[in-house]
Amino acid sequence: MGEFKHFVIVKFKEGVAIEDLIKGMGKMVSQIDAVKHFEWGQDIESPEMLRQGYTHAFLMTFNSKEDFVAFQGHPNHVEFSATFSAAIEKLVLLDFPSTLVKPPPATATA
Amino acid sequence: MGEFKHFVIVKFKEGVAIEDLIKGMGKMVSQIDAVKHFEWGQDIESPEMLRQGYTHAFLMTFNSKEDFVAFQGHPNHVEFSATFSAAIEKLVLLDFPSTLVKPPPATATA
Repeated sequence: MGEFKHFVIVKFKEGVAIEDLIKGMGKMVSQIDAVKHFEWGQDIESPEMLRQGYTHAFLMTFNSKEDFVAFQGHPNHVEFSATFSAAIEKLVLLDFPSTLVKPPPATATA
Repeated sequence: MGEFKHFVIVKFKEGVAIEDLIKGMGKMVSQIDAVKHFEWGQDIESPEMLRQGYTHAFLMTFNSKEDFVAFQGHPNHVEFSATFSAAIEKLVLLDFPSTLVKPPPATATA
Protein backbone atom coordinates (compact mmCIF):
# COMPACT_ATOMS: atom_id res chain seq x y z
CA MET A 1 0.00 0.00 0.00
CA GLY A 2 0.84 3.63 -0.03
CA GLU A 3 1.81 4.09 -3.66
CA PHE A 4 1.17 7.60 -4.89
CA LYS A 5 0.20 8.38 -8.48
CA HIS A 6 0.72 11.43 -10.65
CA PHE A 7 -1.59 11.16 -13.63
CA VAL A 8 -1.63 13.66 -16.48
CA ILE A 9 -3.72 13.64 -19.63
CA VAL A 10 -3.11 16.20 -22.33
CA LYS A 11 -3.96 17.54 -25.72
CA PHE A 12 -0.91 19.03 -27.40
CA LYS A 13 -0.93 22.20 -29.45
CA GLU A 14 -0.77 21.77 -33.19
CA GLY A 15 2.72 21.57 -34.64
CA VAL A 16 4.34 20.45 -31.41
CA ALA A 17 7.16 17.91 -31.75
CA ILE A 18 5.42 15.41 -29.49
CA GLU A 19 8.01 12.66 -29.81
CA ASP A 20 10.81 14.98 -28.75
CA LEU A 21 8.78 16.15 -25.77
CA ILE A 22 8.07 12.62 -24.63
CA LYS A 23 11.75 11.72 -25.01
CA GLY A 24 12.54 14.73 -22.86
CA MET A 25 10.07 13.56 -20.26
CA GLY A 26 11.63 10.11 -20.22
CA LYS A 27 15.05 11.65 -19.75
CA MET A 28 13.83 13.89 -16.94
CA VAL A 29 12.20 10.95 -15.18
CA SER A 30 15.31 8.81 -15.51
CA GLN A 31 17.27 11.53 -13.71
CA ILE A 32 14.97 11.61 -10.68
CA ASP A 33 15.19 8.60 -8.39
CA ALA A 34 11.94 9.47 -6.60
CA VAL A 35 9.99 8.33 -9.68
CA LYS A 36 9.51 4.62 -9.23
CA HIS A 37 7.64 3.86 -12.41
CA PHE A 38 6.72 5.80 -15.52
CA GLU A 39 4.57 4.80 -18.44
CA TRP A 40 2.59 6.61 -21.07
CA GLY A 41 0.37 6.00 -24.05
CA GLN A 42 -1.43 7.56 -26.93
CA ASP A 43 -5.12 6.79 -27.21
CA ILE A 44 -5.91 4.69 -30.24
CA GLU A 45 -9.22 3.18 -29.27
CA SER A 46 -11.75 5.21 -27.37
CA PRO A 47 -14.50 7.05 -29.24
CA GLU A 48 -13.60 10.68 -29.99
CA MET A 49 -16.59 11.83 -27.95
CA LEU A 50 -15.37 10.06 -24.81
CA ARG A 51 -11.79 11.13 -25.35
CA GLN A 52 -12.80 14.81 -25.37
CA GLY A 53 -9.82 15.84 -27.46
CA TYR A 54 -7.26 14.41 -25.06
CA THR A 55 -4.75 12.16 -26.79
CA HIS A 56 -1.93 11.25 -24.39
CA ALA A 57 -1.79 9.89 -20.86
CA PHE A 58 1.25 9.96 -18.59
CA LEU A 59 1.30 7.98 -15.39
CA MET A 60 4.02 8.18 -12.77
CA THR A 61 4.18 6.09 -9.63
CA PHE A 62 5.94 6.97 -6.39
CA ASN A 63 6.52 4.97 -3.24
CA SER A 64 5.00 7.70 -1.13
CA LYS A 65 3.55 11.16 -1.20
CA GLU A 66 6.88 12.43 0.11
CA ASP A 67 8.63 11.07 -2.98
CA PHE A 68 6.05 12.81 -5.15
CA VAL A 69 6.67 16.10 -3.36
CA ALA A 70 10.41 15.64 -3.85
CA PHE A 71 9.80 15.05 -7.56
CA GLN A 72 7.69 18.17 -7.88
CA GLY A 73 10.39 20.32 -6.41
CA HIS A 74 13.28 18.70 -8.29
CA PRO A 75 15.02 21.28 -10.55
CA ASN A 76 14.90 18.92 -13.56
CA HIS A 77 11.16 18.58 -13.15
CA VAL A 78 10.62 22.30 -12.71
CA GLU A 79 12.66 22.97 -15.84
CA PHE A 80 10.87 20.33 -17.90
CA SER A 81 7.46 21.50 -16.74
CA ALA A 82 8.02 24.93 -18.24
CA THR A 83 8.77 23.38 -21.65
CA PHE A 84 5.88 20.96 -21.36
CA SER A 85 3.35 23.60 -20.33
CA ALA A 86 4.18 25.69 -23.37
CA ALA A 87 3.32 22.77 -25.66
CA ILE A 88 -0.11 21.83 -24.39
CA GLU A 89 -3.50 23.09 -25.37
CA LYS A 90 -5.27 21.53 -22.39
CA LEU A 91 -4.62 19.06 -19.63
CA VAL A 92 -6.08 17.37 -16.60
CA LEU A 93 -3.86 16.46 -13.70
CA LEU A 94 -4.76 14.13 -10.85
CA ASP A 95 -2.53 13.27 -7.89
CA PHE A 96 -3.68 10.61 -5.48
CA PRO A 97 -2.81 7.71 -3.21
CA SER A 98 -3.64 4.58 -5.14
CA THR A 99 -6.08 1.95 -3.94
CA LEU A 100 -5.23 -1.41 -5.43
CA VAL A 101 -8.36 -3.51 -5.92
CA LYS A 102 -7.01 -6.21 -8.18
CA PRO A 103 -3.27 -6.70 -7.97
CA PRO A 104 -1.44 -8.32 -10.85
CA PRO A 105 -0.92 -12.03 -10.25
CA ALA A 106 2.32 -12.88 -8.50
CA THR A 107 4.91 -13.81 -11.11
CA ALA A 108 5.38 -17.22 -9.62
CA THR A 109 5.50 -18.97 -12.97
CA ALA A 110 9.22 -19.25 -13.55
CA MET B 1 5.37 -5.73 -23.81
CA GLY B 2 1.89 -5.16 -25.08
CA GLU B 3 0.00 -4.25 -21.93
CA PHE B 4 -3.16 -2.37 -22.75
CA LYS B 5 -4.62 0.34 -20.52
CA HIS B 6 -8.13 1.60 -19.92
CA PHE B 7 -8.04 4.92 -18.05
CA VAL B 8 -11.16 6.72 -16.93
CA ILE B 9 -11.36 9.99 -15.06
CA VAL B 10 -14.67 11.25 -13.82
CA LYS B 11 -16.62 13.84 -11.94
CA PHE B 12 -19.64 12.31 -10.24
CA LYS B 13 -23.03 13.94 -10.04
CA GLU B 14 -23.97 15.46 -6.70
CA GLY B 15 -25.60 13.09 -4.25
CA VAL B 16 -24.21 9.95 -5.85
CA ALA B 17 -23.22 7.15 -3.47
CA ILE B 18 -19.65 7.08 -4.73
CA GLU B 19 -18.37 4.42 -2.33
CA ASP B 20 -21.10 2.01 -3.36
CA LEU B 21 -20.36 2.61 -7.02
CA ILE B 22 -16.67 1.96 -6.55
CA LYS B 23 -17.43 -1.21 -4.61
CA GLY B 24 -19.63 -2.26 -7.51
CA MET B 25 -16.81 -1.59 -9.92
CA GLY B 26 -14.42 -3.69 -7.84
CA LYS B 27 -16.91 -6.52 -7.82
CA MET B 28 -17.45 -6.29 -11.57
CA VAL B 29 -13.70 -6.32 -12.19
CA SER B 30 -13.19 -9.30 -9.89
CA GLN B 31 -15.69 -11.26 -11.99
CA ILE B 32 -13.87 -10.65 -15.27
CA ASP B 33 -10.61 -12.54 -15.67
CA ALA B 34 -9.50 -10.39 -18.62
CA VAL B 35 -8.78 -7.53 -16.22
CA LYS B 36 -5.23 -8.08 -15.02
CA HIS B 37 -4.92 -5.16 -12.67
CA PHE B 38 -7.25 -2.52 -11.32
CA GLU B 39 -6.54 0.45 -9.12
CA TRP B 40 -8.21 3.76 -8.48
CA GLY B 41 -7.77 6.94 -6.53
CA GLN B 42 -9.39 10.15 -5.48
CA ASP B 43 -7.41 13.30 -6.11
CA ILE B 44 -6.26 14.92 -2.90
CA GLU B 45 -3.37 17.03 -4.08
CA SER B 46 -3.50 18.75 -7.43
CA PRO B 47 -4.64 22.37 -7.69
CA GLU B 48 -8.35 22.71 -8.47
CA MET B 49 -7.52 24.56 -11.67
CA LEU B 50 -5.46 21.67 -13.01
CA ARG B 51 -7.94 19.07 -11.85
CA GLN B 52 -10.72 20.72 -13.87
CA GLY B 53 -13.43 19.34 -11.63
CA TYR B 54 -12.44 15.71 -12.11
CA THR B 55 -12.02 13.90 -8.82
CA HIS B 56 -11.54 10.17 -9.42
CA ALA B 57 -9.27 8.10 -11.65
CA PHE B 58 -9.76 4.43 -12.53
CA LEU B 59 -6.91 2.52 -14.12
CA MET B 60 -7.30 -0.94 -15.58
CA THR B 61 -4.56 -3.00 -17.15
CA PHE B 62 -4.96 -5.85 -19.63
CA ASN B 63 -2.44 -8.27 -21.08
CA SER B 64 -3.50 -7.37 -24.60
CA LYS B 65 -5.94 -5.36 -26.63
CA GLU B 66 -7.89 -8.58 -27.18
CA ASP B 67 -8.42 -8.91 -23.42
CA PHE B 68 -9.63 -5.32 -23.31
CA VAL B 69 -12.10 -5.98 -26.11
CA ALA B 70 -13.33 -9.08 -24.25
CA PHE B 71 -13.80 -6.94 -21.13
CA GLN B 72 -15.76 -4.32 -23.03
CA GLY B 73 -18.18 -6.89 -24.34
CA HIS B 74 -18.53 -8.83 -21.08
CA PRO B 75 -22.15 -8.75 -19.84
CA ASN B 76 -21.09 -7.74 -16.32
CA HIS B 77 -19.19 -4.77 -17.74
CA VAL B 78 -22.05 -3.75 -20.01
CA GLU B 79 -24.46 -3.90 -17.08
CA PHE B 80 -22.17 -1.96 -14.74
CA SER B 81 -21.47 0.69 -17.38
CA ALA B 82 -25.14 1.60 -17.54
CA THR B 83 -25.24 2.21 -13.78
CA PHE B 84 -21.93 4.06 -13.85
CA SER B 85 -22.88 6.31 -16.76
CA ALA B 86 -26.01 7.43 -14.96
CA ALA B 87 -23.92 8.64 -12.01
CA ILE B 88 -21.35 10.80 -13.75
CA GLU B 89 -21.43 14.44 -14.65
CA LYS B 90 -18.43 14.24 -16.97
CA LEU B 91 -15.65 11.87 -17.88
CA VAL B 92 -12.62 11.35 -20.05
CA LEU B 93 -11.73 7.91 -21.26
CA LEU B 94 -8.41 6.89 -22.82
CA ASP B 95 -7.56 3.41 -24.13
CA PHE B 96 -4.06 2.68 -25.34
CA PRO B 97 -1.15 0.28 -25.50
CA SER B 98 1.21 1.27 -22.74
CA THR B 99 4.82 2.29 -23.27
CA LEU B 100 6.90 1.56 -20.23
CA VAL B 101 9.74 4.05 -19.89
CA LYS B 102 10.83 3.38 -16.34
CA PRO B 103 9.88 -0.04 -15.06
CA PRO B 104 9.64 -0.64 -11.35
CA PRO B 105 12.86 -2.07 -9.97
CA ALA B 106 13.00 -5.85 -10.02
CA THR B 107 11.94 -7.14 -6.62
CA ALA B 108 15.20 -8.95 -6.14
CA THR B 109 15.64 -7.78 -2.58
CA ALA B 110 14.27 -10.71 -0.63
